[in-house]
Amino acid sequence: MGQGHRLRVRVRFPEADLMGWAHHTVYFVWFEMGRTELMRAYGLSYKEVVAQGYHLPVIEAHARYRKAAHYDQEVEVETVLYEVDRLTLKFRYRVWDPSTGALLAEGWTRHAVIDGAGRLRRLPAPVYDALCRWVVTDS
Amino acid sequence: MGQGHRLRVRVRFPEADLMGWAHHTVYFVWFEMGRTELMRAYGLSYKEVVAQGYHLPVIEAHARYRKAAHYDQEVEVETVLYEVDRLTLKFRYRVWDPSTGALLAEGWTRHAVIDGAGRLRRLPAPVYDALCRWVVTDS
Amino acid sequence: MGQGHRLRVRVRFPEADLMGWAHHTVYFVWFEMGRTELMRAYGLSYKEVVAQGYHLPVIEAHARYRKAAHYDQEVEVETVLYEVDRLTLKFRYRVWDPSTGALLAEGWTRHAVIDGAGRLRRLPAPVYDALCRWVVTDS
Amino acid sequence: MGQGHRLRVRVRFPEADLMGWAHHTVYFVWFEMGRTELMRAYGLSYKEVVAQGYHLPVIEAHARYRKAAHYDQEVEVETVLYEVDRLTLKFRYRVWDPSTGALLAEGWTRHAVIDGAGRLRRLPAPVYDALCRWVVTDS
Repeated sequence: MGQGHRLRVRVRFPEADLMGWAHHTVYFVWFEMGRTELMRAYGLSYKEVVAQGYHLPVIEAHARYRKAAHYDQEVEVETVLYEVDRLTLKFRYRVWDPSTGALLAEGWTRHAVIDGAGRLRRLPAPVYDALCRWVVTDS
Repeated sequence: MGQGHRLRVRVRFPEADLMGWAHHTVYFVWFEMGRTELMRAYGLSYKEVVAQGYHLPVIEAHARYRKAAHYDQEVEVETVLYEVDRLTLKFRYRVWDPSTGALLAEGWTRHAVIDGAGRLRRLPAPVYDALCRWVVTDS
Repeated sequence: MGQGHRLRVRVRFPEADLMGWAHHTVYFVWFEMGRTELMRAYGLSYKEVVAQGYHLPVIEAHARYRKAAHYDQEVEVETVLYEVDRLTLKFRYRVWDPSTGALLAEGWTRHAVIDGAGRLRRLPAPVYDALCRWVVTDS
Repeated sequence: MGQGHRLRVRVRFPEADLMGWAHHTVYFVWFEMGRTELMRAYGLSYKEVVAQGYHLPVIEAHARYRKAAHYDQEVEVETVLYEVDRLTLKFRYRVWDPSTGALLAEGWTRHAVIDGAGRLRRLPAPVYDALCRWVVTDS
């Protein structure tokens, strides 16, 4: 990657487990924060998406954990929008230790587009066109 | 599956999101509960594993979400040990709506074996032999 | 207490902290489960309350922690409805170690009655009358 | 208050409930972040406290909720060390909406000092003396 949106976040006390490591579910929360902030940076607040009656629920999620993130450690979450079609989006994530440059974890999520009633929807053409310009594939 | 260990769990209020649906990270908590209870049912308490200085951290996790689980809904988590070698274990999971039989989600996790210092370890032969007898592959 | 509704719950892995103890916020989740199950036992599902456009948000919460609950430990949450008036409810809770009878923690929560728009509401007379019969004060 | 340490934090998606409001337990996580950052600002990392074999577990916690914090809203957590003696500490917190100046919630936590074996300990005199200089009482 390298061109992705970058977000710093610190491992909270209740997010660390018996070993003092961030629990594996916390990375998915960081991924969610990463895509939320990426969208905000591009002018599309997810809160606004929800307010307009749309949702982008996760329909598939994957993570691979390489090194533990410890309690109170700062990590850097790098997010890219990787694929878009009219029905789904895919984001990719890498979690870095900014003090060493080590890769801690990587993952991806796939999202559907639904309305408030839970029906699958197509992305409106202007939104689809905008999203296509955010896509980073060569990482 | 069908031969897996089955656990009933109810969606808690803070686990439901704005839509009233269990957040996608909650399924990984259920997966963890599923493998913990599967191990307990086979006589191997994960708490005891930790007390003996071993850990089975998640090194890879995957989930595919098919239908939402709602606030206060009971779900059934089915867990099988799917693969074992001397260095890793893989569990598979399915989450069912027991009232309709609908499949809500499915996933898997891969685990390493480490000691308290975080070093990779091989499973002791007796533990490996025992685990091999739990494996369910044809599901 | 002693006359309260009793619920068994086990400390989940991600609920335990660095010390192996249930994080102090988890007790408030147990309290919430306790009052939800007390209400269900009396025939009043909180999900149904929400579906009818009402909410009982926590407006004040208190807990006192006496002994740690450990990872994988079963605890017993005892809940009573302690006070009701037309505008607020107060529940009290005790968390026990069922294996020793030791008191682990105690607390209370106070709740307002609001509608879906967030406006304060009075409890409807039949609901108020029903709740008054649940009140346990001499504990 | 007004003299307290101030921390900005945004309501995360899984922290919001069915109503779109930050769940009442989340405020206690913010309180914990507030005292952690207050301690860091004064040169005393809680991670370091733990590394030296001490802990400051919550023995009592209280919160009063005045206005809801919504999904994606930024809030400001104000923290003061309010009381110190050789055996316990008490922190006070206020949660503000920085866009309006409205008070959303307030609370306090009381902490014991224990060692790694869970025994109550007295604060070492130099630490006690340092903490006494942080105390803010007139708010």
